Amino acid sequence: VNEPSPQPDPTPAGDPGTVAIVGLGLIGGSLARDLAALGVGVVGVDRDPGTVEAALLAGVIARGHDGAHLDEALADAAVVILAAPVGALPGLIEGVSGAAPRALISDVGSTKRSVAAAAAAAGCAHRFVGAHPMAGDTASGWAAARPGLFAGAPVWLCPGPGAPASAVTRIEAIWRQVGALPRTIDPVAHDRLLAWSSHLPQLVASALGTALAGAGVARDLLGPGGRDTTRLAASDPVVWTDILLDNRDQVGDAVDGLLQSLARLRAALDNGDRRELDAVLQAARGWAAADLEGEPAGP
Amino acid sequence: VNEPSPQPDPTPAGDPGTVAIVGLGLIGGSLARDLAALGVGVVGVDRDPGTVEAALLAGVIARGHDGAHLDEALADAAVVILAAPVGALPGLIEGVSGAAPRALISDVGSTKRSVAAAAAAAGCAHRFVGAHPMAGDTASGWAAARPGLFAGAPVWLCPGPGAPASAVTRIEAIWRQVGALPRTIDPVAHDRLLAWSSHLPQLVASALGTALAGAGVARDLLGPGGRDTTRLAASDPVVWTDILLDNRDQVGDAVDGLLQSLARLRAALDNGDRRELDAVLQAARGWAAADLEGEPAGP
Repeated sequence: VNEPSPQPDPTPAGDPGTVAIVGLGLIGGSLARDLAALGVGVVGVDRDPGTVEAALLAGVIARGHDGAHLDEALADAAVVILAAPVGALPGLIEGVSGAAPRALISDVGSTKRSVAAAAAAAGCAHRFVGAHPMAGDTASGWAAARPGLFAGAPVWLCPGPGAPASAVTRIEAIWRQVGALPRTIDPVAHDRLLAWSSHLPQLVASALGTALAGAGVARDLLGPGGRDTTRLAASDPVVWTDILLDNRDQVGDAVDGLLQSLARLRAALDNGDRRELDAVLQAARGWAAADLEGEPAGP
Repeated sequence: VNEPSPQPDPTPAGDPGTVAIVGLGLIGGSLARDLAALGVGVVGVDRDPGTVEAALLAGVIARGHDGAHLDEALADAAVVILAAPVGALPGLIEGVSGAAPRALISDVGSTKRSVAAAAAAAGCAHRFVGAHPMAGDTASGWAAARPGLFAGAPVWLCPGPGAPASAVTRIEAIWRQVGALPRTIDPVAHDRLLAWSSHLPQLVASALGTALAGAGVARDLLGPGGRDTTRLAASDPVVWTDILLDNRDQVGDAVDGLLQSLARLRAALDNGDRRELDAVLQAARGWAAADLEGEPAGP
């Protein structure tokens, strides 16, 4: 009796081949490049006029807009993909929901609870399928965008409540087209997993970089291992401050887990406890050894 | 009046072309491979008969020994390079000093204070030039040894008190021959620097691996950034327990420095303090950006 009424399939709106991408940075720009190369018509929206111009000149987008008139920009789009920093998504999704009232909406954000809540608040959850491609770089912006960024990359999909299977299939197809590997997950499970698998490594690399800077140790004094461990320290603070704050409850738990491991190691050093040091290093190696295939052999 | 008496040049002992390497693991074995390829006569010593046999079969060493009769093994050697785990070096240097009373002695250990003290205790500091090549891999043993491991790698040299310039030049030449970049440093400064630049990143990667294992997050769920940050978790605990214990005063200080950075980040998350989060991430990025050249562009 309280079953949700079946939603009309949102995909037939607009030109079935046109995808609008809002935000032509590293992720949005790379996706635009790959889709355009496959013959998909891409409309690009970016608040930076230089970025829009560069994307037009590169032949990547068929039309470009600065985002001031979203209804005009998105008129043709069957699918709108939001590729802005996580903190900008709630405001953006509200505007896009009104400007493109029949389009299928997706995003590429690194957290999935807040954007799902924003879609629900904007009344477009039934035509929203959140996405998070596990690809990136410490470089950012249109200049860093490049073809093939998503080849082999896992992409987490979080369909909104009431989104029909056809909507999920449409977003899946876009990611498969560019070589990525889509998989569906619940937003809560996503944000917990990513707190550990992605946000914690970023935070640790930043903490390590700050500590090394404080000790006056330049990065070019590090060996190949130390350089890998600190590579993420170069990541864009604009992108990451948003992500860490948006997921701060889960990231806080993950940091506490790391602090426990560090405390064990610190105590073992203090006590000269070889057995305990060895136990932690063996546990870490066992975890890493389960995944040694697919790694490059060299340092 | 209390000046040390000039020491005789130790290098003329034995065949000037013969280098003995004690320990044919990743570092010793790779050095043996490179030197042999350059036409240098290499004598190999390893307590594992299978390793000695493999090195002989590969044509890398001219003669092989199991280490039971060091005087016989080292009779021809002008230079003896100790490539055993850090914890084994003090015992080894005493034996080698007696077995090769005129040879120039060096090592490849990741710490330099304890081996310098052991050389002094064994009475061979004047013919000891410690070395630490900044090259490695998470793989270990003869099977992991390969040509070219040291190409472009910095090598720290710590000449013992009273070692003549010719001794330093001889060890420098060996490392230059295999493409490495030798640089001289004081053992105390070395161990402080390496605590931050190498031992801390290793410890952090192991702590992160242990924490992720505890949270049930498999490594294949990590993106490229998380994988880089945790790559060192696969390192050999036998090698690293020795290093961390040997340098534990300096590593302890470095861990405390990291814990301070992590505490700042943890508090900023708790407080939702965007400005503080951004400050730490910016400091880390500034540190990393000073060294972005030479890094691969991709993730």
